[in-house]
Amino acid sequence: MSQPEALRFEVTAQNGEARTGLLTTRRGVIETPVFMPVGTAGTVKAIRFEELEGSDLDAKIILGNTYHLWLRPGVETIKACGGLHRFSGWNRALLTDSGGFQVWSLGNLRKISEEGTEFRSHVDGSLQFLSPEVSMEVQATLGSDIVMVFDECTAGDADHEQTEKSVGLTARWAKRSRKAFDRLQEVGADLGRTDAQELSGNQALFGIVQGAGHLDLRRSSLEQTVEIGFDGYAIGGLSVGEEKSVMFDVIGELAPQMPPDRPRYLMGVGTPEDLIEAVARGVDMFDCVLPTRNGRTGQAFTSAGKLNIKNARFAHDPRPLDESCGCLVCRRHSRAYLRHLYLAGEMLASISLTHHNLAFFLDTMRGVRQSIRSRDFPKFRREFTERLTANGEY
Amino acid sequence: MSQPEALRFEVTAQNGEARTGLLTTRRGVIETPVFMPVGTAGTVKAIRFEELEGSDLDAKIILGNTYHLWLRPGVETIKACGGLHRFSGWNRALLTDSGGFQVWSLGNLRKISEEGTEFRSHVDGSLQFLSPEVSMEVQATLGSDIVMVFDECTAGDADHEQTEKSVGLTARWAKRSRKAFDRLQEVGADLGRTDAQELSGNQALFGIVQGAGHLDLRRSSLEQTVEIGFDGYAIGGLSVGEEKSVMFDVIGELAPQMPPDRPRYLMGVGTPEDLIEAVARGVDMFDCVLPTRNGRTGQAFTSAGKLNIKNARFAHDPRPLDESCGCLVCRRHSRAYLRHLYLAGEMLASISLTHHNLAFFLDTMRGVRQSIRSRDFPKFRREFTERLTANGEY
Repeated sequence: MSQPEALRFEVTAQNGEARTGLLTTRRGVIETPVFMPVGTAGTVKAIRFEELEGSDLDAKIILGNTYHLWLRPGVETIKACGGLHRFSGWNRALLTDSGGFQVWSLGNLRKISEEGTEFRSHVDGSLQFLSPEVSMEVQATLGSDIVMVFDECTAGDADHEQTEKSVGLTARWAKRSRKAFDRLQEVGADLGRTDAQELSGNQALFGIVQGAGHLDLRRSSLEQTVEIGFDGYAIGGLSVGEEKSVMFDVIGELAPQMPPDRPRYLMGVGTPEDLIEAVARGVDMFDCVLPTRNGRTGQAFTSAGKLNIKNARFAHDPRPLDESCGCLVCRRHSRAYLRHLYLAGEMLASISLTHHNLAFFLDTMRGVRQSIRSRDFPKFRREFTERLTANGEY
Repeated sequence: MSQPEALRFEVTAQNGEARTGLLTTRRGVIETPVFMPVGTAGTVKAIRFEELEGSDLDAKIILGNTYHLWLRPGVETIKACGGLHRFSGWNRALLTDSGGFQVWSLGNLRKISEEGTEFRSHVDGSLQFLSPEVSMEVQATLGSDIVMVFDECTAGDADHEQTEKSVGLTARWAKRSRKAFDRLQEVGADLGRTDAQELSGNQALFGIVQGAGHLDLRRSSLEQTVEIGFDGYAIGGLSVGEEKSVMFDVIGELAPQMPPDRPRYLMGVGTPEDLIEAVARGVDMFDCVLPTRNGRTGQAFTSAGKLNIKNARFAHDPRPLDESCGCLVCRRHSRAYLRHLYLAGEMLASISLTHHNLAFFLDTMRGVRQSIRSRDFPKFRREFTERLTANGEY
């Protein structure tokens, strides 16, 4: 290409299908495999940016939800404030989803046509319309570093015929997304534009592969998506109600066939075990609400399995959430104290559990990368899974 | 005294009645006048200890509520965890109140007798009994560095006869508190005991002066309290519904008569203006829920007056909460963003406003101390008050 890229990706070590690499965005270099905390409304719930940037978490990229930000505070506010980075004060890399999954999740509240999706806002009930063109425009205003195409999520239990139709629509929407996106980059609509060294400074655009559990349709969706051409490729429509075995079959079939020189992103998945299983199949990027959402309801992810802080057995327990964790929370607070905070309805309970859970997810990814570099990933994978399941304590 | 003290206090500069000094506790030296954030349930609501210790806040001492901690998580839990410092992970100085004010506030839910106060727990409705002896015992278990005597708060509108009775009861309870406290120190019941350099390492005990707005009874209460002898003296029963002018009359009459070589603590007061007016009358220590409680309901204290972040005029406002504030929140986030967080129900709104408000209170106290040292306090007081009131913006 004569035009510099919007994003660079380089695999630096491989161990089986598992790989580690460097994803160079216009806002810094990200080591992969990477976990992206979910920042729905321009904030990762219950945790400050200062903590996300701290050495125990050090999140290099977070996710923003187009659907949520579009409805509140709205495009006008974010435009007036110069894009999502300047509006929120987060200066590291941002990926935004397209809103496709959120409006699809509304079920009966939305109507999907060739043109796009009509739906009622969850904020004020007003009638709204989202399409590839609208989504690209909103994401240009947000100025995220990585933009996702507008797709239709296929239901996990869709039959072959339904899925085929859906995959066709997703492909046509992907083309329209690409076209609208390119035009917006040309006219300078991207509010996040930077003078990134060696990069174009533009936004990057990722395509999304759909197809439910039908492997032939997944392959066909991948082919059509790659033909359009994107800076990265995502696997969508998983973890939406299908069996875990189906999910891993799809990932195992698809990931190794995805362009090896482009990042592979598994959307909305999953538990720490899921991440490691997906890495083993060649995935590079993840996002999931589990560490933050479950943190707010009192669940901690630890190297010895999940722990529910409400449990009476922790009433006098002086140990940290995870004895092998070095995060700020584990260095300072006992289970007894965190349980007290939770029962007393104190915000610090959510704050602390969210912090620890994110530390655990991000640290797990650090361990994954390290083990791939040292060609020890199979051992890491086995021992990690054994520790998680062998412990009957919680 | 042949016995080393539990607390040392030294006035280092005086400007009119306003004074600055050093309060040496077994957990570090505190510059006065000092503002103490309120940590009711073993956490200052919506803010982490790491932030309280950060350079923009740097709170040297926080307050814990005996009533709340006694009911939940309860003395057994805190005892099992080695006292409130070890339980919570807060390693700087702690002052605990006696619970007297909290049970008094329960109104019809409590019954006061010579022996103590019977009341129903707000947590589970169970019948409980608090007395000088019980309060001292609970505070020894908490292991706070400064313990408050168990007193009866007098209603702001109490007549002379009612107040005289109440002041008498407070004096008898103060004697019983002193006696119970001394015994507990002797037997080593204090779980916060340290090997403090040059100090006894024991807890310190403060007396409380009551008397509503009746200056003669306030003087008599002060005399009786000083006669018993304490490490510091507090003014209680203000900001409980009386007129502001009454409050300042009481402080203006009382503070200059309090032992000059002992810290003077005004309990539960107040706005930034109140603090400065009280400093001008000779007060050294403050605590108040305003910065934290109001922060959670969207109110910011700024050098140009109070600001309600919900206000529509801030929808696109790129300025920080307070343009002359250097706290982490003001350095990073705009009013537009904070307003969005508040309207979206995001915890980060409470977290951010709490942080800024505490920064403003603590920074105001830094300015107060500096101005007293440079003999500029009258100018500081005048300019601070003018800035607060001259601005019609909010």
